[in-house]
Amino acid sequence: MTKPRGETRARILRTAAELFQRQGYGATGLNQVLAESGAPKGSLYFHFPRGKEQLAAEAVALAGGELGERMASVVGSAAGPRDAVVGVGELLADELRESGFRDGCPLATVALEQAGGDGPISEVCQLTYDTWLLGLSDSLRGWGAADDEAAELAELVLSSLQGALLLAQVRRDTAVISTVARRVASVVVRSLGEQGSGTQDSEK
Amino acid sequence: MTKPRGETRARILRTAAELFQRQGYGATGLNQVLAESGAPKGSLYFHFPRGKEQLAAEAVALAGGELGERMASVVGSAAGPRDAVVGVGELLADELRESGFRDGCPLATVALEQAGGDGPISEVCQLTYDTWLLGLSDSLRGWGAADDEAAELAELVLSSLQGALLLAQVRRDTAVISTVARRVASVVVRSLGEQGSGTQDSEK
Repeated sequence: MTKPRGETRARILRTAAELFQRQGYGATGLNQVLAESGAPKGSLYFHFPRGKEQLAAEAVALAGGELGERMASVVGSAAGPRDAVVGVGELLADELRESGFRDGCPLATVALEQAGGDGPISEVCQLTYDTWLLGLSDSLRGWGAADDEAAELAELVLSSLQGALLLAQVRRDTAVISTVARRVASVVVRSLGEQGSGTQDSEK
Repeated sequence: MTKPRGETRARILRTAAELFQRQGYGATGLNQVLAESGAPKGSLYFHFPRGKEQLAAEAVALAGGELGERMASVVGSAAGPRDAVVGVGELLADELRESGFRDGCPLATVALEQAGGDGPISEVCQLTYDTWLLGLSDSLRGWGAADDEAAELAELVLSSLQGALLLAQVRRDTAVISTVARRVASVVVRSLGEQGSGTQDSEK
């Protein structure tokens, strides 16, 4: 009996993550999550006894963690910082395009609705962004950035790609992501170069 | 009778803009807009016959236009491109802080919920972002940027500040806006310098 229960839980979470990302927290009702996941009535409060807030926090953590892994994989296999930043931009642009411009950042919509609050959903959003930033700045340190510099550059990269993703979503056109990623990649490469570090990636 | 009617309309719009920004489109009901604006029942469909969609489109246009004016005023009174970018960052950080981290971008929450759609609200969001970008790139051209360069730099500035604003809102800390604005300001100054343009603003 354990396995089917786990499958139901996972199916509910997956559906919830998609709906919260596309419609936001406020507009997504638990009945819709149940209906679209095909989960039996009653299973929602069985698996998520603290209700919608718990479901949203876990769904955002799941989707944010998965995107974090895909970004880390791009950065990890990049030849250098320029490829890394451009590659993350391409990843975000591809996913946005393939979803018909519906799936941008899996956190942003819910994060904005929760902004100013301090509940479990806000905490998960903050933790997820911090995890992304930590991964990025670790890689930048690996390419020779000093600690402070790596942290600032990671914030620049994440902020600019996040904003470009939003703009691309509104325009239904990913060109702005490429433009911004290319520009920011140059900033990162130049900044690492100025630190006199040995990076494999040179200005193109 | 015309004046009170105009006042009611303006009050409904103002309340709607605030609620849509903070809660999103889906989570904001017309009854709440009516209650919080203190407008009489029936006045909503009298002033906004096409309902919630019309109200949201006009509210977003109003709030987005006003923020655009405040940004244009900062840019217009800046001594050069560095002051302009840093100044817009300060404006956004101040407004976020003063609202208890509730009021970030007046478009982003609604824009994300509408993403992938093509209704009047999406159109207004797109138009507002384009107007902001046009204002920014006009100023950058005034500081010596070539047309293409000005357009790309405007996209970089807007994207990075937009993303930093979101991150600051989630963290309840505006430091990331200052960091990102300062970094991007340097990119803009350097880029204008590389074009051999005469700018009043030098690298600090």
